[in-house]
Amino acid sequence: MNSPNVPPSAPVTAPVVGMVGAGQLARMTQQAAIALGIDLRVLANTRDESAAKVIVDTRLGDYRDLADLREFAKGCDAVTFDHEHVPTEHIQALAADGHAVHPGADALVHAQDKGVMRERLTAIGAPCPAWARVEDLAGVETFAEEHGWPVVLKAVRGGYDGRGVWVCETPAEAREVLATGVALLAEAFVPFEREVAVLVARSPHGQGVSYPVVETVQKDGICVEVIAPAPGLGEEEAAVAQRVALTIARDLGVTGLLAVEMFVTKSGFVVNELAMRPHNSGHWTIEGARTSQFEQHLRAVLDLPLGSPSMTAPVVVMANLLGGPDPDVYSRYEHVMANDPGIKIHFYGKDVRPGRKIGHVTALGTDLDEVRARAHHAVTCLRGPVDA
Amino acid sequence: MNSPNVPPSAPVTAPVVGMVGAGQLARMTQQAAIALGIDLRVLANTRDESAAKVIVDTRLGDYRDLADLREFAKGCDAVTFDHEHVPTEHIQALAADGHAVHPGADALVHAQDKGVMRERLTAIGAPCPAWARVEDLAGVETFAEEHGWPVVLKAVRGGYDGRGVWVCETPAEAREVLATGVALLAEAFVPFEREVAVLVARSPHGQGVSYPVVETVQKDGICVEVIAPAPGLGEEEAAVAQRVALTIARDLGVTGLLAVEMFVTKSGFVVNELAMRPHNSGHWTIEGARTSQFEQHLRAVLDLPLGSPSMTAPVVVMANLLGGPDPDVYSRYEHVMANDPGIKIHFYGKDVRPGRKIGHVTALGTDLDEVRARAHHAVTCLRGPVDA
Repeated sequence: MNSPNVPPSAPVTAPVVGMVGAGQLARMTQQAAIALGIDLRVLANTRDESAAKVIVDTRLGDYRDLADLREFAKGCDAVTFDHEHVPTEHIQALAADGHAVHPGADALVHAQDKGVMRERLTAIGAPCPAWARVEDLAGVETFAEEHGWPVVLKAVRGGYDGRGVWVCETPAEAREVLATGVALLAEAFVPFEREVAVLVARSPHGQGVSYPVVETVQKDGICVEVIAPAPGLGEEEAAVAQRVALTIARDLGVTGLLAVEMFVTKSGFVVNELAMRPHNSGHWTIEGARTSQFEQHLRAVLDLPLGSPSMTAPVVVMANLLGGPDPDVYSRYEHVMANDPGIKIHFYGKDVRPGRKIGHVTALGTDLDEVRARAHHAVTCLRGPVDA
Repeated sequence: MNSPNVPPSAPVTAPVVGMVGAGQLARMTQQAAIALGIDLRVLANTRDESAAKVIVDTRLGDYRDLADLREFAKGCDAVTFDHEHVPTEHIQALAADGHAVHPGADALVHAQDKGVMRERLTAIGAPCPAWARVEDLAGVETFAEEHGWPVVLKAVRGGYDGRGVWVCETPAEAREVLATGVALLAEAFVPFEREVAVLVARSPHGQGVSYPVVETVQKDGICVEVIAPAPGLGEEEAAVAQRVALTIARDLGVTGLLAVEMFVTKSGFVVNELAMRPHNSGHWTIEGARTSQFEQHLRAVLDLPLGSPSMTAPVVVMANLLGGPDPDVYSRYEHVMANDPGIKIHFYGKDVRPGRKIGHVTALGTDLDEVRARAHHAVTCLRGPVDA
């Protein structure tokens, strides 16, 4: 009973978004969910995972198990993903149960299966490298006869961060890859000048927005640096890349985020990879855009109007923090913070393993060289001595 | 056992910050803690509280109970507060146990006891209104003889958001307040032009930073709007106000954040209130400053170097969202987001009660009138119909 002097308080039913997976993408989505008062639920393997450490409604289960997924989805206003490994048929089953799943199975399959992706992109006229499904060395050699060596072999399913991609210079190298027995795609090696990424969001009712085109710098197949906006990219060229990404999102029926990684070649953009979730190439948006990619994804999957993708500073650089031999990142905070009071540190609460993505930093400013140097200095310090 | 091909991963011991209280200030601190990989622990009354909903390491207990506090503090690298109601002697006991408590009892008492605060501020030369402790009507009348009516009576302990402050126009009104039996302070009514606030941070090793001076707009004793920077305040005047706040922080030995609320009068600044924690007048910093007040507080209590307080846009306006009769805030997100893709919504996940602070919005831009109008429009819409 309320006292007569205290107006009654009423509980509000917060929207519940269920995210399958509990890595750093879910963890950073929680920061956006807290602001919007959205209840974020994650499906984790263990309570030690990056997002499970910061999300109260963490459910333990196996994303490959339909029963676990069904239990997880109960009461969610939208179900979405922190990774692309949930089997297509399970996603279809959840949708058939009546759940709002974003992206849907028909869209997500393009980020799960590179064969389906290449077929569809080719059909809609999106720029692709020459490609073919290959089953044996003869197939690779036939492909190479037309397109030359090296041939890029890609696992049709399951690759990420450079895993599942092999640049083969010779038939012998291709034979080794074929020996692993995984289903493969051959792609012509693209002599690219640099790599860019376009992050777009699309909501179920069809609204789309594009973030500025960014340049991504890879090292050993892992993204180490993202520069927003892509330096020296003309307005018209940028608009072309954004149109490609928005068209793909529309034609593939993507709901939520879509990251399109592209090569920049002398003759234009070539689509390299698709991801349908918050993406490493969009971490800069946390501080660097008016709406972070994580907030944008939540808005999109709940079919709320999308937020402004405009930048908050002329130049934003995100650098990934990869683990070094000495795991004690925290002992190095002092130096990095003292050196640069404006640097933004993100640490994912993961165990440190050499080469593993354990965090990132973001620097914002006006001078590209200076901003890059600040980001580079911060991650170098945080990583610690390389010979510890 | 690790496979020979997988480098060993090493657990990292994250710093643990314990925050007593689980309101929206702790909730927003969690967003900053997630980024820095700091483990935030809160002491809550129930699991329904604003911060308890988003913090895994929520402990239930009574902040007035030393045993609960001692159990809570175990394993924390720093203990701090989301409110100022923890008894001074308990804070002293925690410090005697060896815990790093920020702010310490000797500093925090100035935010808990307005008598102690006025004595100390007077001693260090900070600008105060005329004031006196009063115990009866005779005391109030004596004070009024010198300083005139109205007389502002303030509860020495426990007031906030306009509660515990009475502007008495007559002895009869003062008699009513005296009849409540609470310990009181009399202050001369300050004919102020407007109110401003200065938020500063100070770390245990003595580093101090000040955010820009902001204007705070109150309605019925509750802050409804904060404008950063305070419009039309000259650089020199702003520096004076910042110096007053930094001096108070230093002389009172504050560690963590200190918000100094001031009246602007014809003859200069007059200190009205102190708070030693993240403060409503600093919510704009989440998007509007390079380092949010919540991150700054975490850095300060862990004695890490402080972050840049510089603004991310020329004008930032924060408007508080007060509950209206219709609690369904979420149903109004669509309109607000569609109307203004750049508006930042913060909802605290609290039950809605008319007049209760349940969230805030932040607008950023270059034109003061336009930015204020956007913030005002957003909270008006979110609050919903006033006659529901």
